Amino acid sequence: MIRSDETLDDLTINGLKILQAKNGYRFSVDPVLLCGFITAAHNLRVADLGSGNGIIPLLLAGRAGFREIYGVEIQSAMVERARRSVHLNRLEALVKIIHGDIRELPAELKEQSFDLVTANPPYRNQGSGRVATGDERAMARHELCGGLDSFLRAASSLLVSGGRFYIVYLAERLTELLAEMRCFRLEPKRLRMVHSRAGEPARMVLLEGRKNGKPPLKIEPPLYLYSGLGRSYTKEVLAMYGLAV
Amino acid sequence: MIRSDETLDDLTINGLKILQAKNGYRFSVDPVLLCGFITAAHNLRVADLGSGNGIIPLLLAGRAGFREIYGVEIQSAMVERARRSVHLNRLEALVKIIHGDIRELPAELKEQSFDLVTANPPYRNQGSGRVATGDERAMARHELCGGLDSFLRAASSLLVSGGRFYIVYLAERLTELLAEMRCFRLEPKRLRMVHSRAGEPARMVLLEGRKNGKPPLKIEPPLYLYSGLGRSYTKEVLAMYGLAV
Repeated sequence: MIRSDETLDDLTINGLKILQAKNGYRFSVDPVLLCGFITAAHNLRVADLGSGNGIIPLLLAGRAGFREIYGVEIQSAMVERARRSVHLNRLEALVKIIHGDIRELPAELKEQSFDLVTANPPYRNQGSGRVATGDERAMARHELCGGLDSFLRAASSLLVSGGRFYIVYLAERLTELLAEMRCFRLEPKRLRMVHSRAGEPARMVLLEGRKNGKPPLKIEPPLYLYSGLGRSYTKEVLAMYGLAV
Repeated sequence: MIRSDETLDDLTINGLKILQAKNGYRFSVDPVLLCGFITAAHNLRVADLGSGNGIIPLLLAGRAGFREIYGVEIQSAMVERARRSVHLNRLEALVKIIHGDIRELPAELKEQSFDLVTANPPYRNQGSGRVATGDERAMARHELCGGLDSFLRAASSLLVSGGRFYIVYLAERLTELLAEMRCFRLEPKRLRMVHSRAGEPARMVLLEGRKNGKPPLKIEPPLYLYSGLGRSYTKEVLAMYGLAV
């Protein structure tokens, strides 16, 4: 079940584990923050777009309130690894990993049939920074297989009216994110800035949109990752990791 | 110089004073925050749109770096009062108050001739909340004489390419503000959330745009108005009022 080029990591939430490539894409704190940003759920159908190793479906499976969780991923090696993680956690009844392209949604994902859609999309424009073709990290970080608009179009198409969309994205691209969410009828409703620590600029933003929703937008208190000057997570982030504080 | 229905208030900055109607519009903390958000200036021409009592021109006149400061206001009683404040402060050489409508810019304000434009526009949609017609407070708070788009169109038309636009606005309308600034080629470059205190949602946002600018946007650390649970301003806000801390 675990290959020599992989690690099996403890998600520290309800005993869940995840397989990750030693030298490929490994999940960061961002999906943990995104799942921590999702408010109470009850019997929901969820789709996670660009699921990678399946981190968001696994994190959501560790919480109550979800009836079916789909993850869509274009890279076959990551799909295969995510499926083995689902199997290791005995979550086959709840979590389905679909091999597909969000730009042409697979038939398993019916339009307007999801209550909630999540996305931790690539942040970097194609052409910015170094990209090694065929590298799974590069595909996860750069917009090689669909930019922000592809994610928003897919989310808008999958959600029922009133359904919620959750995204974690680069703070420096907030203008584009808010404007495009509105274009795709995913009205921004809750926004939270993520700062490394107090006194520093925001690095990421967490956003909740509502399909066919209306303003106003609520801007919540900022989230700080680290306390003090070191790399110790704040109590709030530790709690999202399921760690006692 | 001071009428019985007015007060003369100390701006606590370089001995500057302002006349305000006892029962009319009186400036809030917002213009003070906006002026505190403006970074270093050098020999600039400034236009303030919807100047009211002239609070922003007066605050800017108390700082170095401005060659000419124009304020445009549609309400004649406020124009007259602002002009008397300019006279009381002996600032006629630096500050000009123009009676005019930002929707049809007066001839004194030449297109593409300003380095900096400021605005503390009405926050409330026409029709939201109570509005007493003919009330100067209502006109200052509600979009009776031009909504956000009128302010952005005027700012874009007055600024030189690369010129800076500063606005303080309702946090709950951030989506509209960012999207419309981009439409009017005032690219959002710096954003700061204003919270009443730590742990509370943002009430206002401060934004700097650049005419014909490009991303990225920098989201700065939040600004808190009050420290503790009372109404005592934080050290940062007191410093903007020119008060020793």
